[in-house]
Amino acid sequence: MKEKKLWGGRFDAPPSSLMVRIGESISFDKELYAHDIEGSISHSRMLKRIGILSESEQRKIETGLIQIKKEIDSGKFEFKIENEDIHMSIESRLTELLGDLGKKLHTGRSRNDQVSQDVRLYIKTEVESILVFLMDLLGAWVGKAEAHTKTIIPGYTHLQIAQPIRASHYFLSHFWANVRDFEDFLDAYDRADELVLGSGALAGVNYATDREFLKKDLSLSRISENSMDAVSQRDHIFKFLFAASQFMIHVSRFCEEIILYTSQEFSYFKLPDHLTTGSSIMPQKKNPDVAELIRGKAGRVIGSLTHVLVMLKGTPLSYNRDFQEDKLPLFDTVKQVKLSIEGVRDMVLGIQVFPENAIRSLRFGFATATDLADWLVSAKGIPFRTAHEIVGELVKHCSSKGYDLFTIPSGERGQIHAVLTDPGYEAAISLETSCDKKDVMGGTSFLRQKEQIKRAKAKVNELTKKLKSIESKGKK
Amino acid sequence: MKEKKLWGGRFDAPPSSLMVRIGESISFDKELYAHDIEGSISHSRMLKRIGILSESEQRKIETGLIQIKKEIDSGKFEFKIENEDIHMSIESRLTELLGDLGKKLHTGRSRNDQVSQDVRLYIKTEVESILVFLMDLLGAWVGKAEAHTKTIIPGYTHLQIAQPIRASHYFLSHFWANVRDFEDFLDAYDRADELVLGSGALAGVNYATDREFLKKDLSLSRISENSMDAVSQRDHIFKFLFAASQFMIHVSRFCEEIILYTSQEFSYFKLPDHLTTGSSIMPQKKNPDVAELIRGKAGRVIGSLTHVLVMLKGTPLSYNRDFQEDKLPLFDTVKQVKLSIEGVRDMVLGIQVFPENAIRSLRFGFATATDLADWLVSAKGIPFRTAHEIVGELVKHCSSKGYDLFTIPSGERGQIHAVLTDPGYEAAISLETSCDKKDVMGGTSFLRQKEQIKRAKAKVNELTKKLKSIESKGKK
Amino acid sequence: MKEKKLWGGRFDAPPSSLMVRIGESISFDKELYAHDIEGSISHSRMLKRIGILSESEQRKIETGLIQIKKEIDSGKFEFKIENEDIHMSIESRLTELLGDLGKKLHTGRSRNDQVSQDVRLYIKTEVESILVFLMDLLGAWVGKAEAHTKTIIPGYTHLQIAQPIRASHYFLSHFWANVRDFEDFLDAYDRADELVLGSGALAGVNYATDREFLKKDLSLSRISENSMDAVSQRDHIFKFLFAASQFMIHVSRFCEEIILYTSQEFSYFKLPDHLTTGSSIMPQKKNPDVAELIRGKAGRVIGSLTHVLVMLKGTPLSYNRDFQEDKLPLFDTVKQVKLSIEGVRDMVLGIQVFPENAIRSLRFGFATATDLADWLVSAKGIPFRTAHEIVGELVKHCSSKGYDLFTIPSGERGQIHAVLTDPGYEAAISLETSCDKKDVMGGTSFLRQKEQIKRAKAKVNELTKKLKSIESKGKK
Amino acid sequence: MKEKKLWGGRFDAPPSSLMVRIGESISFDKELYAHDIEGSISHSRMLKRIGILSESEQRKIETGLIQIKKEIDSGKFEFKIENEDIHMSIESRLTELLGDLGKKLHTGRSRNDQVSQDVRLYIKTEVESILVFLMDLLGAWVGKAEAHTKTIIPGYTHLQIAQPIRASHYFLSHFWANVRDFEDFLDAYDRADELVLGSGALAGVNYATDREFLKKDLSLSRISENSMDAVSQRDHIFKFLFAASQFMIHVSRFCEEIILYTSQEFSYFKLPDHLTTGSSIMPQKKNPDVAELIRGKAGRVIGSLTHVLVMLKGTPLSYNRDFQEDKLPLFDTVKQVKLSIEGVRDMVLGIQVFPENAIRSLRFGFATATDLADWLVSAKGIPFRTAHEIVGELVKHCSSKGYDLFTIPSGERGQIHAVLTDPGYEAAISLETSCDKKDVMGGTSFLRQKEQIKRAKAKVNELTKKLKSIESKGKK
Repeated sequence: MKEKKLWGGRFDAPPSSLMVRIGESISFDKELYAHDIEGSISHSRMLKRIGILSESEQRKIETGLIQIKKEIDSGKFEFKIENEDIHMSIESRLTELLGDLGKKLHTGRSRNDQVSQDVRLYIKTEVESILVFLMDLLGAWVGKAEAHTKTIIPGYTHLQIAQPIRASHYFLSHFWANVRDFEDFLDAYDRADELVLGSGALAGVNYATDREFLKKDLSLSRISENSMDAVSQRDHIFKFLFAASQFMIHVSRFCEEIILYTSQEFSYFKLPDHLTTGSSIMPQKKNPDVAELIRGKAGRVIGSLTHVLVMLKGTPLSYNRDFQEDKLPLFDTVKQVKLSIEGVRDMVLGIQVFPENAIRSLRFGFATATDLADWLVSAKGIPFRTAHEIVGELVKHCSSKGYDLFTIPSGERGQIHAVLTDPGYEAAISLETSCDKKDVMGGTSFLRQKEQIKRAKAKVNELTKKLKSIESKGKK
Repeated sequence: MKEKKLWGGRFDAPPSSLMVRIGESISFDKELYAHDIEGSISHSRMLKRIGILSESEQRKIETGLIQIKKEIDSGKFEFKIENEDIHMSIESRLTELLGDLGKKLHTGRSRNDQVSQDVRLYIKTEVESILVFLMDLLGAWVGKAEAHTKTIIPGYTHLQIAQPIRASHYFLSHFWANVRDFEDFLDAYDRADELVLGSGALAGVNYATDREFLKKDLSLSRISENSMDAVSQRDHIFKFLFAASQFMIHVSRFCEEIILYTSQEFSYFKLPDHLTTGSSIMPQKKNPDVAELIRGKAGRVIGSLTHVLVMLKGTPLSYNRDFQEDKLPLFDTVKQVKLSIEGVRDMVLGIQVFPENAIRSLRFGFATATDLADWLVSAKGIPFRTAHEIVGELVKHCSSKGYDLFTIPSGERGQIHAVLTDPGYEAAISLETSCDKKDVMGGTSFLRQKEQIKRAKAKVNELTKKLKSIESKGKK
Repeated sequence: MKEKKLWGGRFDAPPSSLMVRIGESISFDKELYAHDIEGSISHSRMLKRIGILSESEQRKIETGLIQIKKEIDSGKFEFKIENEDIHMSIESRLTELLGDLGKKLHTGRSRNDQVSQDVRLYIKTEVESILVFLMDLLGAWVGKAEAHTKTIIPGYTHLQIAQPIRASHYFLSHFWANVRDFEDFLDAYDRADELVLGSGALAGVNYATDREFLKKDLSLSRISENSMDAVSQRDHIFKFLFAASQFMIHVSRFCEEIILYTSQEFSYFKLPDHLTTGSSIMPQKKNPDVAELIRGKAGRVIGSLTHVLVMLKGTPLSYNRDFQEDKLPLFDTVKQVKLSIEGVRDMVLGIQVFPENAIRSLRFGFATATDLADWLVSAKGIPFRTAHEIVGELVKHCSSKGYDLFTIPSGERGQIHAVLTDPGYEAAISLETSCDKKDVMGGTSFLRQKEQIKRAKAKVNELTKKLKSIESKGKK
Repeated sequence: MKEKKLWGGRFDAPPSSLMVRIGESISFDKELYAHDIEGSISHSRMLKRIGILSESEQRKIETGLIQIKKEIDSGKFEFKIENEDIHMSIESRLTELLGDLGKKLHTGRSRNDQVSQDVRLYIKTEVESILVFLMDLLGAWVGKAEAHTKTIIPGYTHLQIAQPIRASHYFLSHFWANVRDFEDFLDAYDRADELVLGSGALAGVNYATDREFLKKDLSLSRISENSMDAVSQRDHIFKFLFAASQFMIHVSRFCEEIILYTSQEFSYFKLPDHLTTGSSIMPQKKNPDVAELIRGKAGRVIGSLTHVLVMLKGTPLSYNRDFQEDKLPLFDTVKQVKLSIEGVRDMVLGIQVFPENAIRSLRFGFATATDLADWLVSAKGIPFRTAHEIVGELVKHCSSKGYDLFTIPSGERGQIHAVLTDPGYEAAISLETSCDKKDVMGGTSFLRQKEQIKRAKAKVNELTKKLKSIESKGKK
């Protein structure tokens, strides 16, 4: 005889094949198994505490759940589509092991609060792991910056060469973006860090559930204030997907730069062979695939954010079955973010810089034209906008004759404006000097780079402490 | 010794573990195997035709490919992550079977044109199958409409009861939306129906590839005009995902209505037990899960469209590795669309209508108030806006006293306006009459419903022919 | 003679008409004028401090800027498309007023850091104002909850009646969602609260810009750490748009409920006339337009988030002209969020609840079936799943005969199971009792509602303090 | 006394200030005025035809509407927020002009079918105008291609130099993408080209509306089949926004290339001064702003598509007030698409190509390495994969020594493999030869380029005819 659904009492007919196929989530929500079991163990302890389970019943349940976890860990557990989801699969197996006692575990709990709790535990675990990866990446940026305070590369606006910058400055610009990512992932962790068990289907439960006990036993920081809100909202998923989307936008920009800077035309960077691939028929190609794949994954993660936002839009409270698929974009995004952090970190570590190519571009790109204009203002007392126009003419002349600011003969300069033959001209266009004049907090001067590296390291220490406090809490 | 990558000549180091994990697509693009093999067989025939393969070589290759297809069909084929993608996996196995001859198959071809061709063949096959499903759904709508030309239900605007309509009218409104979907999926089919093989990596190939032969052998309708465009664009995927998104929006709206109409408050529809589920602790619930899941899947599919649009945005021609993941949202959307069509069709077929509940709402909702106003205009010569105001007062009075238009005593009507005591009043508010007065093409009158069912059937015939012409072509 | 562009030195030809039309932002970024002038005044003070402007020069500039602000405030300022953007428009007018002195204001500044600073000041101002509105809304929720601790309405899952809840519980569920919104808008405020002036075009500036002074003078909390990151990133806009999107999702769900609950079929709520509209030809309609419009605006705001994410994706550092249009979705979202808060607040304040309709639905929806099952377990010792099945049978019987749990005769109950004739039956199905048994933190019992209202008020106080600290800071 | 709303009969209180502000659409839907008046004139003619208006009444109404159009055309019309939308504004003015007769115009019509018709007429008009612009752009591509069949530039994959291509090939690749855009905009035109008047609020109208007459009078191609579907769906907007999104993705890719190719590092292209801007403090910059702005607008248009999809998702039939804002993303997208076409066209026309820079990159990028491998296969009988490896070694050697394939001495070649000293080597690596060997349909050989230009011109002629048939129809 076909096993009756747990909720089948009122029903004449079993679910159709379509219903089973469209309704099952076991093919993806099994990823939650460890968290589901963790939550169930705490729940059983709480049930004992409030007298619903005896001590020996609780012990049997906990032992049973631990056994099931081992079965799943080791790949021996058989997932059946009839058990629909991970919660039913585990409960079903528990009942196989313990008989009716297995069914008692569900007392004072609904799948609505259970799944929300599982996902929150999942997010906490995965964000912690993402933060560990990110920490690594932050370290890589700082290391690279430290190695390149003396390397000068072009800074771009509009992808036009704008000003010379120190490469350390460039690497740190991505460092600070990822620091914000770290903080936003931490926010996502905090949002998830809440006990929702005890919310029942939507209204609370008919038992004296000890939510303070559950909170402590599950190492959570808060108790949800309103049971209806607790089972209806998915803000913890939103917040995670937002942090992930922002991170992917950040790294998509770095990846674009990797793709540019490793192109034959720029040739500022080279990636190690183990991070690139060749083409099946073009042997000379050294493709920055990791960078491209991550850039593309930005679309994937934004698609996931869109998925969940659209899914929730306009749905009435409390739980609706639509929400079942909230887990798919979440799980996929966790994987993509981790892969992307790894990929970016490996690229950062592996980048070989070719300063001579960067310098060639800087000269060709008139990168110190602004400095020249500023010198006309500060040393020669020429009004800013006039200076700007003089330099404009000079650049135009150079362009048409194939000179750069370093190679144009003094005489031709004089034809533009006498002041350009002044002996201070050379110093005014020096790349190093240009950098070092940006001696403002956050600027690209050598001293400011040293200062910024110090501040970056202090930030790394601060975040390391935050991470440790999470880790120690998780282990409690 | 670790096998060298086919493109590894120039490289000192093998790809890192991260490179392998982030770069592999075999975990998902194996879905293309049948299409990849189909394309390869045609390619081998063409190579024979232009003298690159001998007849016996071609025969061996075709036999080898057919054997590989059988191995994959039967689940015996071992996919290895080192083979990266489905193309390499098949080529690698072919070389195992045939030695160096296996390698010759790749002559005059690049993974860039190969993968684009595979995806186009995939889209053609899957759209054909979606159209078969859709045809079924169109039939279901018409059948349901035919059964309900006499059933009167409320028509809503703003989810406020607006006017009585015939249920057939309602079912046909979704029919016509799905007809547009059919046509848009057909457009997606046409866009994909193009030969791109022969485009090489981007510039064409160094062989006298006979593209006319390939076009015919693969039953394609056109040859791509420009090799660079052919390997760079993903418009066939865009177009499919757009058709899918629009379809999902359409059905998300029907699903919303199912959810509303099967709620205790509306109770116009009931779904069969096999399409609903119960709650683990609330035995009276009969949840319209299929409708909810499909409504939610609208978010999933829009997320996929977003994914691919964002992925392509701002990438230079021609192929970029970002595009590798275009297949994931495509494959997933194919599955979601099919499941959704099945689900909607089963719901349409299974809906049980409860006209008495619908009528109760119509009366309570003053659904014929407009008709009353129109009668005041046409039969009583009262200016439209004045009539409108009289009826407004009447409705307000009824609301405050708990009447509806059918139950308010004539005397109280007279207090609003003498004309409301006219004997024509009853006929003016009849639900049937209200419907039948909408005797305009596309309107809800009984005769117009009959006409529309006829037109819907003619449309079904027309689309059936289109579908058959595709099917016969595919079989060629 | 046509006026030369400020940056026109190198150029032979003026911008084309297309260039002017596509490039101008003055039609929308004039919204920033007050912030641009605020930033410029501080910049001028700083320039005086570091000796670039004399005291009298600074005084003239500040006076000139204040005059320009008045001109714009009063609508007398003439915006010209040739001045492209708000920064040029103001500088241009200043130069009209002060001659060459006006040009000096731009010393040590670039449009790149200037515009980023302006937008940050704008976000701070607007979020502060949004938080004031939100505070109001939070108060409205609490007030409504307080008035309805005794009102019982259905709680839904799957839009099926699940359990009775207290209406206060329902109102508070939205309160807590909006509390998270408050906190997330506050985060967006914090992210924007940073000095970026001094970053120049990307590398810092060639002047000894006193950034600490600027930070204080502009009441900002931090100084950006890296000039390149400062001008390249748009995380402050992302964060605001994310908070806005989440808020719109929250309220779209409440709006959906308003639409449902004010429908003729539910009739739990009525909106005041001044928040609804009629139909041009259907006098009986009372459309919940405000709710619908806000629900629709969720799409608008998500579209804006998508806009900015896509715009940034894959762009290399630092500034790119693409970013010019980041302001459009930002400005529009600010307006939509404010309108939506106002709309939701007015609806919350204006809702008239009809408890008798809610009760009718609860009875009809077997809302206490779960309670009955629980009673069978706790008072009668029947195993949970068996109890569940008994109640399932009872509900099925009632449904088919037109009874509810309150009206089914004892005798018929006995036919299902003898225990159902027990005198405890009536108490077991009471709506009030059902609520009060959910006596768990966050649950729907009367006492827990009182507790939750207290906690909600404490939260309001806490957030009021946060808001005041922002306000006082802004006034400094 | 405050004027009463037309639909105000049932209402005690006028709309609140919030209701007015959130509900008005006149600030944006006035864009529809010409189409609204066009539709109203046809409607009045039809009303005369079926006897509802007398000939003189109709004449007065038509004259009145024409006068109102002139008032709006000339900017004299005063739009008032109390009139909410363009329909009310015009009707209100008509009633001012004609008294009660003005009110009669609304007989047999609802704002629901009226606004849908207006938007469809708007889309038809605007798409026609977009197609005229696109035609221009298609011509520009062909012209540019014709001028550059002999120019050789690098073809890229992964932004790595892959193979030499003829610049004509490159320009035509964008031509063909825009041909698909033309066809998709045409589809959007067709979808909109439908009569919906006569659908009333949702169920049809109570008058013998002559829809065939309206169809002809408005030069429409079809009559909507189902009144409920007609007022509920927004597929015409979807389809337009999809065509626009795809177009924007296409041009965002070209814009990326413009940005790359005009960078100092690539220097293949130069844009004319009138399409670029300078920087306020960096005189040497020549920024490709038009390209950047258009690339960014891709985000804006995708945001608009997202807006409308999300807005419709999960809304029940038929009209909901949410839909009011469907016009904003539509109108904005029309403007952005037009500006973008103009911008791309001007860039295409204005591009100055620098072949010598392109050639320098090709040599440096080993662009004919594949050709060399192919020559080893075809002329020297070396197996393909082996040849691939030999060339791989050669490239690696060149890279490490600073050679390219053209400059490496024969002796060093011989150390890699004896065959590389063969006299055929030079011809094998020629850029021209490489192109001309791609002598396959769609390939980059000179003859194939000539062929493709011919085909492109034929396509232009075909599309011109389609456009003319639309234009002539519109003028009817």
